[in-house]
Amino acid sequence: MSRIDGRTPDQLRPVSLERGWSKHAEGSVLVSFGDTKVLCTASVTEGVPRWRKGSGEGWVTAEYSMLPRATNTRGDRESVRGKIGGRTHEISRLIGRSLRAVIDYKALGENTVVLDCDVLQADGGTRTAAITGAYVALADAITWAQGKKIIKAGRKPLTGTVSAVSVGIVGGAPLLDLRYEEDVRADTDMNVVCTGEGHFVEVQGTAEAAPFDRTELNVLLDLAVAGCDELAAAQLKALDATLGH
Amino acid sequence: MSRIDGRTPDQLRPVSLERGWSKHAEGSVLVSFGDTKVLCTASVTEGVPRWRKGSGEGWVTAEYSMLPRATNTRGDRESVRGKIGGRTHEISRLIGRSLRAVIDYKALGENTVVLDCDVLQADGGTRTAAITGAYVALADAITWAQGKKIIKAGRKPLTGTVSAVSVGIVGGAPLLDLRYEEDVRADTDMNVVCTGEGHFVEVQGTAEAAPFDRTELNVLLDLAVAGCDELAAAQLKALDATLGH
Amino acid sequence: MSRIDGRTPDQLRPVSLERGWSKHAEGSVLVSFGDTKVLCTASVTEGVPRWRKGSGEGWVTAEYSMLPRATNTRGDRESVRGKIGGRTHEISRLIGRSLRAVIDYKALGENTVVLDCDVLQADGGTRTAAITGAYVALADAITWAQGKKIIKAGRKPLTGTVSAVSVGIVGGAPLLDLRYEEDVRADTDMNVVCTGEGHFVEVQGTAEAAPFDRTELNVLLDLAVAGCDELAAAQLKALDATLGH
Amino acid sequence: MSRIDGRTPDQLRPVSLERGWSKHAEGSVLVSFGDTKVLCTASVTEGVPRWRKGSGEGWVTAEYSMLPRATNTRGDRESVRGKIGGRTHEISRLIGRSLRAVIDYKALGENTVVLDCDVLQADGGTRTAAITGAYVALADAITWAQGKKIIKAGRKPLTGTVSAVSVGIVGGAPLLDLRYEEDVRADTDMNVVCTGEGHFVEVQGTAEAAPFDRTELNVLLDLAVAGCDELAAAQLKALDATLGH
Amino acid sequence: MSRIDGRTPDQLRPVSLERGWSKHAEGSVLVSFGDTKVLCTASVTEGVPRWRKGSGEGWVTAEYSMLPRATNTRGDRESVRGKIGGRTHEISRLIGRSLRAVIDYKALGENTVVLDCDVLQADGGTRTAAITGAYVALADAITWAQGKKIIKAGRKPLTGTVSAVSVGIVGGAPLLDLRYEEDVRADTDMNVVCTGEGHFVEVQGTAEAAPFDRTELNVLLDLAVAGCDELAAAQLKALDATLGH
Amino acid sequence: MSRIDGRTPDQLRPVSLERGWSKHAEGSVLVSFGDTKVLCTASVTEGVPRWRKGSGEGWVTAEYSMLPRATNTRGDRESVRGKIGGRTHEISRLIGRSLRAVIDYKALGENTVVLDCDVLQADGGTRTAAITGAYVALADAITWAQGKKIIKAGRKPLTGTVSAVSVGIVGGAPLLDLRYEEDVRADTDMNVVCTGEGHFVEVQGTAEAAPFDRTELNVLLDLAVAGCDELAAAQLKALDATLGH
Repeated sequence: MSRIDGRTPDQLRPVSLERGWSKHAEGSVLVSFGDTKVLCTASVTEGVPRWRKGSGEGWVTAEYSMLPRATNTRGDRESVRGKIGGRTHEISRLIGRSLRAVIDYKALGENTVVLDCDVLQADGGTRTAAITGAYVALADAITWAQGKKIIKAGRKPLTGTVSAVSVGIVGGAPLLDLRYEEDVRADTDMNVVCTGEGHFVEVQGTAEAAPFDRTELNVLLDLAVAGCDELAAAQLKALDATLGH
Repeated sequence: MSRIDGRTPDQLRPVSLERGWSKHAEGSVLVSFGDTKVLCTASVTEGVPRWRKGSGEGWVTAEYSMLPRATNTRGDRESVRGKIGGRTHEISRLIGRSLRAVIDYKALGENTVVLDCDVLQADGGTRTAAITGAYVALADAITWAQGKKIIKAGRKPLTGTVSAVSVGIVGGAPLLDLRYEEDVRADTDMNVVCTGEGHFVEVQGTAEAAPFDRTELNVLLDLAVAGCDELAAAQLKALDATLGH
Repeated sequence: MSRIDGRTPDQLRPVSLERGWSKHAEGSVLVSFGDTKVLCTASVTEGVPRWRKGSGEGWVTAEYSMLPRATNTRGDRESVRGKIGGRTHEISRLIGRSLRAVIDYKALGENTVVLDCDVLQADGGTRTAAITGAYVALADAITWAQGKKIIKAGRKPLTGTVSAVSVGIVGGAPLLDLRYEEDVRADTDMNVVCTGEGHFVEVQGTAEAAPFDRTELNVLLDLAVAGCDELAAAQLKALDATLGH
Repeated sequence: MSRIDGRTPDQLRPVSLERGWSKHAEGSVLVSFGDTKVLCTASVTEGVPRWRKGSGEGWVTAEYSMLPRATNTRGDRESVRGKIGGRTHEISRLIGRSLRAVIDYKALGENTVVLDCDVLQADGGTRTAAITGAYVALADAITWAQGKKIIKAGRKPLTGTVSAVSVGIVGGAPLLDLRYEEDVRADTDMNVVCTGEGHFVEVQGTAEAAPFDRTELNVLLDLAVAGCDELAAAQLKALDATLGH
Repeated sequence: MSRIDGRTPDQLRPVSLERGWSKHAEGSVLVSFGDTKVLCTASVTEGVPRWRKGSGEGWVTAEYSMLPRATNTRGDRESVRGKIGGRTHEISRLIGRSLRAVIDYKALGENTVVLDCDVLQADGGTRTAAITGAYVALADAITWAQGKKIIKAGRKPLTGTVSAVSVGIVGGAPLLDLRYEEDVRADTDMNVVCTGEGHFVEVQGTAEAAPFDRTELNVLLDLAVAGCDELAAAQLKALDATLGH
Repeated sequence: MSRIDGRTPDQLRPVSLERGWSKHAEGSVLVSFGDTKVLCTASVTEGVPRWRKGSGEGWVTAEYSMLPRATNTRGDRESVRGKIGGRTHEISRLIGRSLRAVIDYKALGENTVVLDCDVLQADGGTRTAAITGAYVALADAITWAQGKKIIKAGRKPLTGTVSAVSVGIVGGAPLLDLRYEEDVRADTDMNVVCTGEGHFVEVQGTAEAAPFDRTELNVLLDLAVAGCDELAAAQLKALDATLGH
């Protein structure tokens, strides 16, 4: 049984990580997982939120949002409604936690990095693409801050790499990196965030239709770990390329 | 190495499920996991949200909130700030999804059940206590609606039971049902929602301090499944007791 | 003509004032006027709002709220609507003013006490139960602050006691301490807040259906003053009992 | 001991009720109590709020607001802050209740009158001026609606007149119709709303500094009833004058 | 073809500028352009917004609003809706920019003037009346601040005068100072803000129905410049009159 | 005196109009004016807002927004602040009015087109780029709706083309299509919206630093009309290219 786009069950969509997309941000990446496109920018500011002042430690946070017509039918803008929806809140928090997992706050010093992940086009997996792209933008922003001596010489605020992918059980079959049409039909849907060493940063599995058992969970985790491993390689390859700006 | 309250690593706190706590709600439970106390009420209304009208199917949703002084230091009221925080949104959504996992929408008919979970006192595990208590309130509300013929004769909207518990790795040791003081020291923190058959409804694991590996994940899942099993027994025992109102 | 619950016109419902209900708050009381139950917590913080800094004087304020299913039909949460309703505002202000009437700001020093009054179950008289319970929570919080030397030795911030009760004219009969079913049928409805000496702190009379004359006003005030007197006795008795935490 | 503006204790400030101030509203009055000036407009719309549809009964409601520089120091606009303050809510509700006390909803039919009371200049007593002026605007709006046959022939929605005045104890002396400088020095402050027959619609007494006793309450009520009586005469006189538009 | 009120195409409505309307504000004007009436108050505060502190320069800003029944049908209050509409924002910004065009920030020193323009009755041209009236209120406020030595001796913060008028093409005819009924029928509508020397501060032309050509634009500008010139004369005349308070 | 990027005073920046940028929207264009990049999507829905139902006429509206890091320093998200700023409101309204100027509502039928203009990168002229790009997205959406028979056969809802450009006086020199660095130094700044025939839809000139005279206004209008003419040619050329999706 083949997938709608002909992929094998354990195959990622084509991934691209276009660095330096924005001329203003200290780090910026347009990440694509197939038709899902997220613009990730990393903004560095000296100083930290009030509750962290004087600690000598930095902070990393994230905000996720979707353009109103990133999806098949137009959604209302959250700015127009005057409030942020639960899904947006939940994903923003997930991205922030995921990237903080590879940050050494002491090495960062009292500086803040804000990661803005704006979905320009959605086709499933927007949060996992956002995490994967935001890591690259964050790495570029930290390199920039080191160059500007905002981060002290010899300090390495990044303790590793982090990437994320979705997996799910669709029509009984465990699949990697779900597109939107697969996602809506999934019985179980899981987002997994891993470090480059293959350890878990977040595991969020949800039974959309039917509860899942331990065997299914294990198969999904195997798929996800392998997918994150491929994404980690793509991140390193993107960061190895010289940034032409 | 013993725990602050003398429990063994795989021991739940004392659990109580006080049914019929409110005279107004169709179902109501004051659930305690040790010093964590959550008032769960289930409100039945005929009809469903607009996007579901005419489907013949019902809806179940949840709202979670904390009283301002449920915690050690007073928090601002979300009503006063004029917006709901990300954590509140995230937990409300988790509770709703967890209970919908054991609902047969067709059998419920075009009726809505709203579960309000208000934390009166917090000491860790408020979301898992809320899910565990809300299930009992939901069961009572459905019994009430069957009695009132709001749900058609012979229909069984509940397809099973659902309970939840937290697990985590604290100082290297995997522990069940974390208190607040354990939770803040945890390297990894996981909330697990299971059906009475021991299948997973939600698995949410987060590396608070250090990424976790597959072995640690497995130990935590074992602890959680056993804990949920005990909670399911407590739910059934509570529901077997005659409700005196 | 007897009342729905068999009380005489000048009889209060059973009153209970359960101190030390919350383990976190500096003072906490679960107050019941019959089926009306309000959780009152008093939170002490050092410091005062900006407009009062440097004055050497303290501040006492209150916030009132109802759980969504405290009433017979579920109400929307004010946090979800994103704004506080007029009734909530009005009652919060009334509670704050009532308690400030027995506070010596100088003796309190530059400390703030916030009284949170959350209605867990409503059956009429929630604001008067809240004031009566909040006084006891406030007294416990002040004792706590004296013990912690946050309030200077020898200072007595409480200048007296304060309690409150509702009265009304229902079907032509003046009644004390209205239940919800009496309240909705009342022609005139009055909330009276008294000090322990029987002086007035607040008198709020409203003609719900028919304007009232001076004679009716006087009968209602007589009933209210006697009711407040009984409540003051209950407060003192509760405070005399040793608090076991 | 004379008052700052030379009045006797039982003397009102000069009162003016300028009808037909706005060319758009169905009723409009610029009311002045001395330097306190409130623009009251009455807007008639056919139909009632949803919860009242099909009842055959009408509705009357009010909104009170202050221009930012109506007072001695500029206040923030509530529209800019994005929320309505407690004081504004409280007064809007008081005005609405006061006017509904003289409305026969059946006679009004399924029509709504909204009373907007905007304080252009404040010098104490804005809420009592608003009620007194709004009554006259309401009377004009009802006459207009009768003329347009929106209210059925022979129906009399107004069952009487209503006016309001403030009283207080300042420096030990009971005074009628407090100016701002008197109001801030008052120990006790009371707003009284009366019908033309001298019956009470609202009595709201607050001990700002010291609790008050029954004797003081009685003196204040006497002052207030006499003041409302004078205001009722001013209302009738204003309404007798032909409206030139 | 004559206008609804008999004016010639290049004729302003009767203009009045009533200074000293409010006893509290440092400058206040009730401006009328025919039936359009706007209360403009100028509030002086020492200090500037945070972003301007230490610059030695002052700030002038404006807020525009309409009373709910200033128009023919009642509009919702923006404070009740909890947000400011786009039109209100746009006009507030226009008024602020227009008055800042004649301010020497250095001469003003680190002081702020807020201009509140509240439309009491609307009949077209509310923003142009607001600018014209606000200038006079601003001039009075600056004179007041000079008298109080808040502005240093010899400093002249006002570099000129500013007035505004609307013009439009209605039924093919270019008209000055449109009333509401003309405005709604206009093909093109333009608001022009001029200094007393006849130079442009703002030109905002909008094709409501049909695009306009260069010739039409020129005719409208001629009309507007002449209208602003007349308004500048009225402003000077009003300011020459001694203010009796 | 040459410009920062070597352009002549009457030269546009390189313009690109990339159609079909989004796979979901009925029309979509990524428009660039140099480094200013705006994603414009056109969403077609059948039906119109309530106030227009039954009129047989359609509606076109627009929403403008900037990504937080579209600019040199990160701005707060309006969704996080919970309110839309005045500048955003003003520009959204301008874009909507500009496009409605070339719409025949009757021919559109009771359908709505929403134009979302999201600034991905800003370097001056975002509103004029948005209008110019949105026109192309709108044209594509209308073609799509004609193909789907949502718009009736033979109907032509577009009555012409519309484009926009900024002009200003910088250091005494009139310049076309200002970059950000020019814009902040401009004495006068004007945005001009023209139809393809060179008629005006909007003229918005603002004296940022010094009032401008009639001669300056005329020079700026000449520059703008020529610029809009070039942009109109670019629009037609882009629309002539076959859209490959």
